[in-house]
Amino acid sequence: MTAAFDFGPLLAPNLPPAAGKYAGFPPFNFVGGHNDPKQVPVADLIAAATAVLQREGPSLATYGLNSGPLGYRPLREFLAGKLKGHAGVTCTPDEILITSGSLQAIDLVNGILLTAGDTVIVEQETYGGALTRLAKLGVKAVGVPLDEEGLRIDALDAALAELKAKGVRPKYIYTIPTVQNPTGAIMSEARRRELLAVAERYGVPIFEDECYSDLIWSGTRPRALHALSTTGNVIHIGSFSKSIAPALRVGYIVASWELLSRMLATKTDAGSGALEQMVLAEYCARHFHAHVPKLAKGLRAKLDVLREALSENFGTAAEFGDPPGGIYLWIKLPDVVDTQKLFAAAAKAGVALNPGPEWSTDKAYARSRLRLCFANPEPEQIRKGVATLAEVCAREFGVPTRIANVGRG
Amino acid sequence: MTAAFDFGPLLAPNLPPAAGKYAGFPPFNFVGGHNDPKQVPVADLIAAATAVLQREGPSLATYGLNSGPLGYRPLREFLAGKLKGHAGVTCTPDEILITSGSLQAIDLVNGILLTAGDTVIVEQETYGGALTRLAKLGVKAVGVPLDEEGLRIDALDAALAELKAKGVRPKYIYTIPTVQNPTGAIMSEARRRELLAVAERYGVPIFEDECYSDLIWSGTRPRALHALSTTGNVIHIGSFSKSIAPALRVGYIVASWELLSRMLATKTDAGSGALEQMVLAEYCARHFHAHVPKLAKGLRAKLDVLREALSENFGTAAEFGDPPGGIYLWIKLPDVVDTQKLFAAAAKAGVALNPGPEWSTDKAYARSRLRLCFANPEPEQIRKGVATLAEVCAREFGVPTRIANVGRG
Repeated sequence: MTAAFDFGPLLAPNLPPAAGKYAGFPPFNFVGGHNDPKQVPVADLIAAATAVLQREGPSLATYGLNSGPLGYRPLREFLAGKLKGHAGVTCTPDEILITSGSLQAIDLVNGILLTAGDTVIVEQETYGGALTRLAKLGVKAVGVPLDEEGLRIDALDAALAELKAKGVRPKYIYTIPTVQNPTGAIMSEARRRELLAVAERYGVPIFEDECYSDLIWSGTRPRALHALSTTGNVIHIGSFSKSIAPALRVGYIVASWELLSRMLATKTDAGSGALEQMVLAEYCARHFHAHVPKLAKGLRAKLDVLREALSENFGTAAEFGDPPGGIYLWIKLPDVVDTQKLFAAAAKAGVALNPGPEWSTDKAYARSRLRLCFANPEPEQIRKGVATLAEVCAREFGVPTRIANVGRG
Repeated sequence: MTAAFDFGPLLAPNLPPAAGKYAGFPPFNFVGGHNDPKQVPVADLIAAATAVLQREGPSLATYGLNSGPLGYRPLREFLAGKLKGHAGVTCTPDEILITSGSLQAIDLVNGILLTAGDTVIVEQETYGGALTRLAKLGVKAVGVPLDEEGLRIDALDAALAELKAKGVRPKYIYTIPTVQNPTGAIMSEARRRELLAVAERYGVPIFEDECYSDLIWSGTRPRALHALSTTGNVIHIGSFSKSIAPALRVGYIVASWELLSRMLATKTDAGSGALEQMVLAEYCARHFHAHVPKLAKGLRAKLDVLREALSENFGTAAEFGDPPGGIYLWIKLPDVVDTQKLFAAAAKAGVALNPGPEWSTDKAYARSRLRLCFANPEPEQIRKGVATLAEVCAREFGVPTRIANVGRG
């Protein structure tokens, strides 16, 4: 190669910073929505792949598999039944769009509704990837505080009233009502009805993200906002990433054809991956309902390990609840701790965590908070990782001062 | 449901028209890049899925499968070897980014380079999906005429000189040099060197799309532009859609880490579908080199059927070449024929075709041209479809006037 061509002057303006090189997973991996490798139902997935390919393999020669751009029809049929039984959602397979993970679902919903300068309502603590997407679009995210049941209706009403007084009609209210990310809260059905009433009063639709809603220890849950709405003002999304496997990039959107037809016009990917849809449909029709409680039981056990390890290593310095489901714990450390600094110091010790400010619109409130995902590491890694984190935190911030009832310096 | 919520006023401005409802494939399906259902290697794909899931199934519990965001490493390793042997491309697995089909590859390349108001060079006849993407981005596509070897270097030089005189530096030259879409031309190695020389003289990089390059009747091809460049000014993309199955949404980008790290920062989909990557890697390592010639032989036979059917039904009214590979034929009908009107009339008769103007920057030149894909329909459907198309064309435009040596009217 002679003098290398310089692409620098040709790059588009305002690109995000370049990605770093991948260096493998950290030893203590408490981030990223990964799940438990031991719980991937390998044998049943092989049986599903074999059965569906034997029956329908030649259809891989066609974009869309004879099912059209909404996605593999048997998967949409499974979802229609599952959503009805689990979340009370009434929809036909033609009101479901299969997406490449729920991230594409978020992008498609944003794509038809948002433009730079718009405003949306979000939960004050919410999924970091939703916040970065809104920032990239130039959309203002107004955070509404949460309590142990999720979105606070009084605060929502006040925020909507304030925006209305300024002539601003938010494009949607983004909520994760069932196993909230990061708090783990499940919104009661009464609270959901209040939320719907306020949303309808202000003419603002609801964007309901149910990405984690299958992973509930009790197995039962309130009906989805989509199910409770009487006006069709709720767009509902979900995913198989948490209930089966995150590397399978399969999510979905439930919405009216009026909206799906708009999203399809912008979904120019020639369909989402067919093999993943086919294998999931075949697997889920037979095994989903037995698999999910088994997975949830294992996750509950890992949560217990994490909570015990935190109590043991942080004592009263770490405050946290007992979430009714999910794969993460939202933790408050003493005010002296800056979790973004903790993040950097912990990374050097092999511990990956989500610092609170990335998961919140209120950076000051979230400054000493963090999210730990517990689904991927083995119990022993959870214990060692939390012990390491406590050591790093004590070194950097002087807390915890006492560990396992032993004074530390 | 009470009064339905009206999303209309909340939609973003300038959305594309809503998609129509899917009505199944047309009886005579000559569009869309579909392939031959009988050539999907079902048994070997099942064996590959079984083997790779037995060995690595638990890794599905992690985003990125321990391979990082560039994609499943064994697939990148296969590609590095295949690209070297087939196209002369020298690259490491870390210079390959796996994408969700080559459409995402195009989007990622466009995403880091293009902004509204930019100019790019394209082949005058080119992939319609590339043109619609550029239009959506507000980017001006300057078409350069083709001959039987592809991009005309004299015309390219003139176009670049004219732009330079106006102070415009195009962001790239988009070319499909190996089985050009839609003409089927394969650019000679001498022409490729001329293209590289002109591109380097003007400081414009090349965006090389090799989506169809595996499907060549002779099995051999000139080296890729990426292989011939001495300055690293070529971004190379490809796909498994045409060589294995289009419903598997797996494509790739070959570029320097400088560029891939920029693309990764904008690829916020948490990775492309893992199962498809795993099954493809396992399958391709064992069977790719035997499968492709077999597939190509079957496609060559279908092309013969199409060419015979056109000669028989259109006589001299249809002009076309004998492409050295691919899945489509580019056809010139008499000037009286408007292929966009023919498209609409043929659709009513169950025949789907690509009207020329959608595949060209010169709408007048392409007005009486069309593209027919021959990979998907069975030989009998090809014959019946072409006969139907000739009938529709004769009825609408008065040509062909003689069919199978029998006067018509």
